[in-house]
Amino acid sequence: MTVYLVGAGPGDPGLITAKGLDLVRSCDVLVYDVLVSPVLVDEAPEDALRISRENVDQAVINALLVDLGQRDLEIVRLKGGDPFIFGRGGEEALALAEADIPFEVVPGVSALSAVPASAGIPITHRGVSAQVTLVSGHSAKGEELDYAHLAKTPGTLVVFMGVSHLPEIATRLIDAGKDAHTPAAVISRGTHDDSESVTGELHEIAARAANLESPALLVIGDVVRVGGLLTTAELTQTSRT
Amino acid sequence: MTVYLVGAGPGDPGLITAKGLDLVRSCDVLVYDVLVSPVLVDEAPEDALRISRENVDQAVINALLVDLGQRDLEIVRLKGGDPFIFGRGGEEALALAEADIPFEVVPGVSALSAVPASAGIPITHRGVSAQVTLVSGHSAKGEELDYAHLAKTPGTLVVFMGVSHLPEIATRLIDAGKDAHTPAAVISRGTHDDSESVTGELHEIAARAANLESPALLVIGDVVRVGGLLTTAELTQTSRT
Repeated sequence: MTVYLVGAGPGDPGLITAKGLDLVRSCDVLVYDVLVSPVLVDEAPEDALRISRENVDQAVINALLVDLGQRDLEIVRLKGGDPFIFGRGGEEALALAEADIPFEVVPGVSALSAVPASAGIPITHRGVSAQVTLVSGHSAKGEELDYAHLAKTPGTLVVFMGVSHLPEIATRLIDAGKDAHTPAAVISRGTHDDSESVTGELHEIAARAANLESPALLVIGDVVRVGGLLTTAELTQTSRT
Repeated sequence: MTVYLVGAGPGDPGLITAKGLDLVRSCDVLVYDVLVSPVLVDEAPEDALRISRENVDQAVINALLVDLGQRDLEIVRLKGGDPFIFGRGGEEALALAEADIPFEVVPGVSALSAVPASAGIPITHRGVSAQVTLVSGHSAKGEELDYAHLAKTPGTLVVFMGVSHLPEIATRLIDAGKDAHTPAAVISRGTHDDSESVTGELHEIAARAANLESPALLVIGDVVRVGGLLTTAELTQTSRT
């Protein structure tokens, strides 16, 4: 009777919320994104209908949720990260609202902070950064990103899904006046066991990250240096224990 | 032997992560913030030591975590929201790293998206906002906030902990050139059962929110209008069922 738009978290299946996990465990239908951990898909009841969103247009998913929502079923729409941070949850919620289908949003841990954290980087840090700007790298080629403005924005810049546009993003920021020596990091598959990350200065980060896999997150700003301190300390401990 | 810096989520105790909840349930010591739900504090084992962070300086907490971390104990430092989004988790992590204490960050659901979501507002929405800027209202009186720049920043602006500085933030944004008719919302105690929210235009939002309690989040941008659509739909359904 209800469609739950649930955030699965950034990758590590342990980072789904307690409420989200309960809903997955009791649903009739699970509609899940490609990036959702198979461990979470397996948490659905054995007789639950599982539908992968792979290769399906957003409009089709919206229509499917409306169709399912009109039946006497509990539906979980499990989305990577948080439904409302570049998750297109708003579009699904609107489609349900327009069709008078009851729905509830259950937020999730976004990659925004969790993925940098997995590489030891705090996106805010007292005395270093009190402002975070979040953009999507998908917009990099369009007119949506205002590089002149972004280049002058203080604090931490986080770019989602930017790995394929990385050379262009770095170049355009530097061309617009951003200091080429600004610390930067790219974290691939953050919070997963096979996560990899590189750090460097903005002018060299694209070359350093060339072999990293998608999904990846780009972090630009002095917090990456704080991250350096944390990572070194952690690595020291790891090598000792 | 390890200090876990765990995000408790934005308020609703169901929004802690599965991993965070497991750690709380098996810890020896729980050091928790004032804003953490009592329901989560009660999840710690009966014989666990519970320490409230109330009225304790950050430096004292850092020293306490280092002291506890040197003993043969599992310590959970439970923080509101996410440890690295205005959570000062980086300071605690650095203190632990410098003292060679093993630690791990377990991210949480931030108020950033969860609190607007609880009022039906998606902070990103295709065609409406592809950029989010996050600042802290605590910085409003200082030199940290660049109002001239913020007033020209596209997308959604989210201000944490801004309720006491609300009139000043709105006035200074408008004085710096932000359209006084920009949609805005203030959500108080979002995700809690007693949550309240108001919406309006930027010039009137401070007056409308004057009676709302802390903690509150300020959202400025056209996504508030999308929120209006979602909220109306939800209210319609509630009145019918």
